[in-house]
Amino acid sequence: MKRKEFLKKSIIATVAGTSILSACAPDKKLDTEQTNTINYNKIHRWKMVTTWPPNFPVLGEAANLFAEMVEKMSGGRLLIKVFGGGQLVPPLEAFDTVASGTVEMGCGAAYYWTGKSPATQFFAAVPFGMNAQMLNSWLVSGGGYELWKEVYARFNLIPLMGGNSGVQMGGWFNREINSIEDFKGLKMRIPGLGGKVIEKAGAAAVLVAGSELYTSLERGVIDALEWVGPYHDYKMGFHKIAKYYYSPGWHEPGTELEFFMNNKAYEKLSSDLKEIVQSASQRIQNWMLAEFDFQNAIYYQKILEEEKVEVKKFPKPVLDSLKNYTVQSLEEVIGSDPISKKVYEHYKDFLKKASVYNKLTEEAYYNLIAK
Amino acid sequence: MKRKEFLKKSIIATVAGTSILSACAPDKKLDTEQTNTINYNKIHRWKMVTTWPPNFPVLGEAANLFAEMVEKMSGGRLLIKVFGGGQLVPPLEAFDTVASGTVEMGCGAAYYWTGKSPATQFFAAVPFGMNAQMLNSWLVSGGGYELWKEVYARFNLIPLMGGNSGVQMGGWFNREINSIEDFKGLKMRIPGLGGKVIEKAGAAAVLVAGSELYTSLERGVIDALEWVGPYHDYKMGFHKIAKYYYSPGWHEPGTELEFFMNNKAYEKLSSDLKEIVQSASQRIQNWMLAEFDFQNAIYYQKILEEEKVEVKKFPKPVLDSLKNYTVQSLEEVIGSDPISKKVYEHYKDFLKKASVYNKLTEEAYYNLIAK
Repeated sequence: MKRKEFLKKSIIATVAGTSILSACAPDKKLDTEQTNTINYNKIHRWKMVTTWPPNFPVLGEAANLFAEMVEKMSGGRLLIKVFGGGQLVPPLEAFDTVASGTVEMGCGAAYYWTGKSPATQFFAAVPFGMNAQMLNSWLVSGGGYELWKEVYARFNLIPLMGGNSGVQMGGWFNREINSIEDFKGLKMRIPGLGGKVIEKAGAAAVLVAGSELYTSLERGVIDALEWVGPYHDYKMGFHKIAKYYYSPGWHEPGTELEFFMNNKAYEKLSSDLKEIVQSASQRIQNWMLAEFDFQNAIYYQKILEEEKVEVKKFPKPVLDSLKNYTVQSLEEVIGSDPISKKVYEHYKDFLKKASVYNKLTEEAYYNLIAK
Repeated sequence: MKRKEFLKKSIIATVAGTSILSACAPDKKLDTEQTNTINYNKIHRWKMVTTWPPNFPVLGEAANLFAEMVEKMSGGRLLIKVFGGGQLVPPLEAFDTVASGTVEMGCGAAYYWTGKSPATQFFAAVPFGMNAQMLNSWLVSGGGYELWKEVYARFNLIPLMGGNSGVQMGGWFNREINSIEDFKGLKMRIPGLGGKVIEKAGAAAVLVAGSELYTSLERGVIDALEWVGPYHDYKMGFHKIAKYYYSPGWHEPGTELEFFMNNKAYEKLSSDLKEIVQSASQRIQNWMLAEFDFQNAIYYQKILEEEKVEVKKFPKPVLDSLKNYTVQSLEEVIGSDPISKKVYEHYKDFLKKASVYNKLTEEAYYNLIAK
């Protein structure tokens, strides 16, 4: 491919949110232009409101890391003060707070904002949808990020990729799931689309605050819950009070996290700081999945070997039923919202292409090395 | 986790190659320190020698992108001129050229340098080893990058992660592979450890330059070859002259690419530019797998639907034999080289932990969505 063609392509689909062309003028010219327009004495002070408890493992840590990277890269010219959920505003007010411009930046997961626009959830987790690697490819190279920007632009926000959890676990159950009938009457903490899906199977999707989950499961207020994965679940102590740990997390096969910025605040940054912010996002995108996989592998071993928890797989017919209910739920979402339809059809098209290729590669390889 | 504990942990194992602690002084102090030590008028001009033809799809593009990102983030204060293989020095002299300090930076894949140190190959591709996601977790969070730095430090080099190809294809064959016996007398272009493995099965691993591959396969000089994946393979036209396209790429389950810098050149950079270079590496690390997956999915569809190539899977007993030969080959490598032993044992320990967890998550999920 010729350099020009490549650059043209890059702008359309390749590097998330970064206009590369302006960096491709001959060295001398760019050099003069940039040093002329950057005011190295200007210090930007931003606030970031997050939806996590302060310093929450991995997710809150990512917000801190983002701020630290940006501070270091910018030589202290862009300083971002990170606030845990509730420290400045309640966690779920982060979106509105940044949209209004009261605060410059936020951190969360796009499915928290389905009340604002149902299309947001396609940028976080879709049951039976893409895993982390597919979603990253769709966002970075496949045009997904451009759609995300379109959805958030209505709220004066610019999204940034903020990492991925990888395939989550299916949750902790005190009832065995042998058939889809076993969901009837089951009280489970499971938010988002996953919750809608199990409700179609006759379960009750219950809302419980994180701090009350342990007690609720212990006292039988709920029969089951899903949280994140072995690392976070172990810290919550669920292995002490639940009988079974189910896999895989059909409802969250690779949950994408996010940062979001007020567009006016972003536009005030010089071109170098904009590029620094984009790079920090991509660095967190790479770091988080690595960190989740690393911690989860260690804590899964603890759960299995030290705690002797019984790990079970959902039976295939149960998963088939849940998949059918998922298709119905998704049709309800896109049936009443044109932008959701547009995003989901793009998403589905990529998922199909990626699945065909993955069958031969990642999937075949996992099966090959399976013991 | 407390902030202090988190930061301490980060330095040991979390964020690849970045000392975070120095960025965590109170805002004011850091701010003053950094603006005092950064000379915003200083312009660094670096050269990067690559092992790829100029602007080679994905791999050469990544080198260009790296330079463009760094230029933009640094406001034109770190300018990296990228040279295709052979433009300044022959491709495989990149390592020595940067080690000697003649040029500041290089781009390649660590298994090219097994002649310098056999341990380098563990940072590129190991047959039946880690795929891209596992390798990224090992490098970023599991301590792998620290070992990589240790191996390269002997050559005055600092490595940087430079992307991953994902699971490659098994190659193009003009002979059917029904049993391990079919490797006897097979002439195949396959470099590195994969080549050593098929030689144990009685094949001849032949060295053929990229530019001569098409003609060699067409004329029967070789019976088989492996190149990269559907995107690159299609551009080479192998589908026109080969009978079978085999999967999966047991020999390169997730090949890591790299940048490497002369350590003296790196030390001359101010702290902001060092952080910028580290971030560009992580951004490429995330971008490349996304781009490979995206392009490969599209080109695999072309190969399958437009070109009607017969895609075959290696039979299980063949893969089992190749795996046994791989174990032998790896024992030969580590038997004679203590640093290889140290690296491989660390690698193998993580692969085992990650595989146990992946069985329940990524692997179970791929199997779940398989049609």
